[in-house]
Amino acid sequence: MIRIAVDGMGGDFAPLEIVKGAQSVARDGLASIVLVGDVEKMKPHLTDNVNLDMVHTPVCVEMHEAPSNALRKKRDSSMNRAFELHKAGEVDAVVSAGNSGAAMGFAIFTLGRIPGVDRPAIATIHPRIGDGVSILLDAGGNVDCRPAHLAQFALMGNAFAASVLGIASPRVGILSNGEEETKGNELTREAHTLIKQFGLNYLGYVEGTDMYNGRTDVVVSDGFVGNIALKISEGVADLIFAFFKEGIQKSQKAKIGYVLLKDLFKEFQKKADYSETGGAPLLGVDGVSIICHGKSNEKAIRNAILLAKKFVEKGLTKSISKTMQDHQSSRK
Amino acid sequence: MIRIAVDGMGGDFAPLEIVKGAQSVARDGLASIVLVGDVEKMKPHLTDNVNLDMVHTPVCVEMHEAPSNALRKKRDSSMNRAFELHKAGEVDAVVSAGNSGAAMGFAIFTLGRIPGVDRPAIATIHPRIGDGVSILLDAGGNVDCRPAHLAQFALMGNAFAASVLGIASPRVGILSNGEEETKGNELTREAHTLIKQFGLNYLGYVEGTDMYNGRTDVVVSDGFVGNIALKISEGVADLIFAFFKEGIQKSQKAKIGYVLLKDLFKEFQKKADYSETGGAPLLGVDGVSIICHGKSNEKAIRNAILLAKKFVEKGLTKSISKTMQDHQSSRK
Repeated sequence: MIRIAVDGMGGDFAPLEIVKGAQSVARDGLASIVLVGDVEKMKPHLTDNVNLDMVHTPVCVEMHEAPSNALRKKRDSSMNRAFELHKAGEVDAVVSAGNSGAAMGFAIFTLGRIPGVDRPAIATIHPRIGDGVSILLDAGGNVDCRPAHLAQFALMGNAFAASVLGIASPRVGILSNGEEETKGNELTREAHTLIKQFGLNYLGYVEGTDMYNGRTDVVVSDGFVGNIALKISEGVADLIFAFFKEGIQKSQKAKIGYVLLKDLFKEFQKKADYSETGGAPLLGVDGVSIICHGKSNEKAIRNAILLAKKFVEKGLTKSISKTMQDHQSSRK
Repeated sequence: MIRIAVDGMGGDFAPLEIVKGAQSVARDGLASIVLVGDVEKMKPHLTDNVNLDMVHTPVCVEMHEAPSNALRKKRDSSMNRAFELHKAGEVDAVVSAGNSGAAMGFAIFTLGRIPGVDRPAIATIHPRIGDGVSILLDAGGNVDCRPAHLAQFALMGNAFAASVLGIASPRVGILSNGEEETKGNELTREAHTLIKQFGLNYLGYVEGTDMYNGRTDVVVSDGFVGNIALKISEGVADLIFAFFKEGIQKSQKAKIGYVLLKDLFKEFQKKADYSETGGAPLLGVDGVSIICHGKSNEKAIRNAILLAKKFVEKGLTKSISKTMQDHQSSRK
């Protein structure tokens, strides 16, 4: 059975929601879980130990702690201990809803990077018009990027879409302010030149609308732009739903209309809800690491663990590793 | 009466929709119009000449022409002739739905910049949760910016929100990947240091969600990020409406619900529709210049002209001029 370490102390609702999410997967026999954290604090929330072990580590990274501080002083934290178990081969993946900067730092520090990757990147999975999902990377890990970093994101995103999403020839694009080659900024222009040489199904520059219209499978950006893209998306969805909520309260007719459309509203919210996806993989580290939203509840943690399991089964790490190797040797 | 030059040949639906939009304003006596373009092509669409003159200029900037080419070779185009009329004091503002890169170039070249402005910026007006509207600048004019440019955008946006939107103390923020001072990229960090010194109602870094949640009045970014922010917004709205459209077709119950909610759907689409706003002002040139969407129809042109009129009445140019002067002298 695939074995996954879960940082029991990470997240705004830890340890309660984390323990519950982990236990639900273990009890269903979907994975074997190692809960890492303060046993005294986690134990009261556990009902049984089926497929579930605990590793006691009282030290915990705080949610708003400077990642640099955690990296220096908290190598014995529940978060890093989970990565150490992965490094030692005792588990196949790590799930944490803790301080995401620290999780990224410890993942890189403890697991190491896949050769050929300078900067591991957070990939988010999002809905689109029509079937399937698209991914965006980097979603916030690396703010100031060089062209080579974006080129590596393209390779990793391509490997992810091929191995995990099963897309034969993923359509990859750089997020830009227009499709023409004359568009883009200094960073994207140089990255474009690099990615063109990889032989991917590369679309060149794509626009913000292409993130959601089904034209792309993988959208590449630096982490500054990627984070803004995600937060803007959230903001627009909130605006639209707030508008309908207000309108519905003003009119009896609209209120009835809403009741009839309620299933659709719910279905969309489910589609857009991060807790349905569970978390975002950190691509480029030598292992499977899922970074979850700080506000993760039981369902989000359960889904994040199942996502991690899928990545292990699909051989995500090997797939990225092979891609990076192929493209390094082709450059020599 | 306020007098506005309209580029009769600019836009995907020129001259028909442009002439119709201009004429509707003139006929209602809301402004006096000077239609600039090929008289032979515009005339067939005109029904009368009330409050409306024409200036004949057969040369026309193509929609997909390289702006640099237009700037070099088409100084006698309808587009630039409109700006020349403004420069000469014969009109109070210019409206063009033509090639936006060329319109920006000619506006800067012919009208000149307000002292203290290095890079004029396109400001877009967008809805938000609750009352009022927010503005984003730069929405795509300047891709690679320096910190001083972002600082100037903050001053211009502040002047715009105060003079045109009538907000006493506009809340201004830099679009970033998080609110903390440790966030941001190299560009925003230096811009942040500059803007802090201006004495504005400055929020520091704001997130993508803050563009729409009513927390900000003015959001500042470089044109690369600004364009992506707008296109992502469009993409998310399209995704949501496509989802509902598909769902409605699948269920009779949902279909009835949609009929009852139709007014709300329409109202939102109106709120988000660029043709309702009409166009975006180019802030920082020495005059009033409205850049419209290439796909502008009669309604969009009409609204753009009325927007231009409002900017003239509210003294937008003077207000920006004064702000730039105040902050230049305070820096000396």
